[in-house]
Amino acid sequence: MTNTVVSSASKEVTIGFDHPFVIIGERINPTGRKLLAAEMAEGDYSRVEADAIAQVAAGAHMLDVNAGIPLADEPAILADCVKLVQSITDVPLSIDSSIVEALEAGLAVYQGKALVNSVTGEEERLETVLPLVKKHGAAVVAISNDETGISEDPDVRFAVAKKIVERAADYGIAADDIVVDPLVMPVGALNDAGRQAMRIIRRLREELKVNTTCGASNISFGLPNRHSLNGAFLSMAIGAGMTSAITNPLHGEEMAAVMGADVMMGHDPHCKRWMAKFRQPGEEGAAGEGGRRRERRRRRG
Amino acid sequence: MTNTVVSSASKEVTIGFDHPFVIIGERINPTGRKLLAAEMAEGDYSRVEADAIAQVAAGAHMLDVNAGIPLADEPAILADCVKLVQSITDVPLSIDSSIVEALEAGLAVYQGKALVNSVTGEEERLETVLPLVKKHGAAVVAISNDETGISEDPDVRFAVAKKIVERAADYGIAADDIVVDPLVMPVGALNDAGRQAMRIIRRLREELKVNTTCGASNISFGLPNRHSLNGAFLSMAIGAGMTSAITNPLHGEEMAAVMGADVMMGHDPHCKRWMAKFRQPGEEGAAGEGGRRRERRRRRG
Repeated sequence: MTNTVVSSASKEVTIGFDHPFVIIGERINPTGRKLLAAEMAEGDYSRVEADAIAQVAAGAHMLDVNAGIPLADEPAILADCVKLVQSITDVPLSIDSSIVEALEAGLAVYQGKALVNSVTGEEERLETVLPLVKKHGAAVVAISNDETGISEDPDVRFAVAKKIVERAADYGIAADDIVVDPLVMPVGALNDAGRQAMRIIRRLREELKVNTTCGASNISFGLPNRHSLNGAFLSMAIGAGMTSAITNPLHGEEMAAVMGADVMMGHDPHCKRWMAKFRQPGEEGAAGEGGRRRERRRRRG
Repeated sequence: MTNTVVSSASKEVTIGFDHPFVIIGERINPTGRKLLAAEMAEGDYSRVEADAIAQVAAGAHMLDVNAGIPLADEPAILADCVKLVQSITDVPLSIDSSIVEALEAGLAVYQGKALVNSVTGEEERLETVLPLVKKHGAAVVAISNDETGISEDPDVRFAVAKKIVERAADYGIAADDIVVDPLVMPVGALNDAGRQAMRIIRRLREELKVNTTCGASNISFGLPNRHSLNGAFLSMAIGAGMTSAITNPLHGEEMAAVMGADVMMGHDPHCKRWMAKFRQPGEEGAAGEGGRRRERRRRRG
C-alpha cells in the first residue's frame, strides 16, 4: 500500500491507493494570468489570498503555489505566497517552480511536509532538486520527461518515471514520497492519448507502486465542452488508479466526476461526502429506507 | 475480438470491444409510467412513436421495446410496438419481456437480427428463451441471476454468466451473440457496488470474452445528483470494458460521459462525434492548428 503523506502545521493529507482522490488546486499560478502576475510582481497578494480561500471552500485538499513571473524575484515572491497561504488555510501545499532557488526559498519558510513540484528525469534537475527534497523531508512530483523532451511513447515515459524513482532512492527518498505525473497528451491531437494515459497510470500503480497526478485539463486541449471531457477523463483515470490531480476545484463538472469516482472506488463510505455536497435541504439520503431496497429494474416487465 | 452484430432491415450496429459504446434507449417501457401504460393498453402508441424518435435523435444506437402492462395482452402489444418502431426508425431493437410468448410475438414480426432481452440463469428461462434466440438467429442479453436470486457476491454473478454462456453454446448460440448484464447494485446501499461492477465487467471481458450491458441508473438509486453519479459510473465502466448500456439518451450528463469515454478509448477518431455534438457554430476544432500544439502546462513557471 502506497501512501504519500504531506502536511501543513496542523493537518495531514494522504495521497494513496486506499484513500479518496486528492485535488490539488491549480489556481495560484500567474502563468497566463496577466493581472495576477502584475499584482504579484508588485507585492499585492490579495488575489492569491482570495484564490486560496475559494479553492479550499470548493473542496481542494491541497493548493499548488507558483510564482513564475518573468523578470520578477521569484524566490522572494514564492516564499511570501507560501507564508501567506499557510497563514489563512490549513491545507498542505505543493511548492511549484522550475527554479531551484525558488523551491528552496519556499521550502525554507514552509511549515509541515510539502510536496515539491517538480523534478524531471533531466540529470541537472535530478541532481539539484532531489537533495533539496531529502533535506527538507518533502515529497516530490516526478514528471516523466528528460533531456530528450517528452516522448510520445508511453513506455519511454514509464521508463523515465522508473529512473526518477530509482535515483530518488539513491538520495534516500522513498517511493512513497514520489508522485509521478505521466504527462497526459491532448486527445484532440493524439487519438490514443486517453488509452495511453490509462495504461501508464495502471503500470505506475501496479509495477512501480507509486502515486500519480496530472494536469487534468491537458487532455481536452483544443476541443469543445472541455469540462465534460475532463470529467470523463478524471473518472476513468481514477478507475485506472490515479490518486491525485492538479486541477481547478471551482469547475463543478470535474469535481462531480472526481467525487463520483470516489464513490465508485468505495472511497466515500456511506456516500457521506457525496450527499453532503449534493443533497437538497430536506431530501432523504441513501442511508434511509429507500437506499436499502434495490430499485426495480425499469426495463423488466 | 468479440462483436455482437444486431440489425434492423437496413442498418447494422456492432457492440464490440473495438467499437464505440452502444446506447440502448430505455424509454419505451410502461413500467412506472402510468400514462404510457394506459395508452398502450388501449392501443394508443403515439407516445411510443414520440419516444422512439426523440431517443434516436438524442443519439440512441438501439431502442429497447417493452410492453409489460399488467392484465394486458403483452404479446400483441409488443408485436404492434416492434412493427411501429421499425416503421419509423432504422435502429436495431432490443425486444424486452419476461414473458416468453411476448418475446416470440416480437421476434415473429421483427425485421433483422434482434437483441432478445433477456435470459437469466434460471433453468426454466434457459430452456425456453435460448431455443427461441437460436430459432430466430437473434442475440440475447444474459442477466446474471438464477433460481437463488441475485447474489451479492460478484464471483457468483460471474459464475452464473459463465453458465448461461456455456448453456447457450449447447443450443448453438455463439458467445459473440451474448451480451451479459452483470447486475449493478446501488452504491448507496452497498459501498463496494462500484468496485464490484468494475471487477466483474473486466472479468467478463478478459476471461469470458463477452460483451456487456447494464441498466446504468441502478448504481445511483437513493442518492442525490444521480445524473452526475451515473456519468462517473458509465465513464469508469467503459474504461473497465463495458460495451453497451440500457439507459436514457435524453439525459445530457450521461451522454457526455459516454461520448467522453469513447474519446478516451480511442473510439472517436479525430474526436469527430464529440465535435459534431458540442462545437459551437464558428468554433474551430481540434483538427485545426491549435490541436496539434501541446498546451503549455499552466502550472509550470
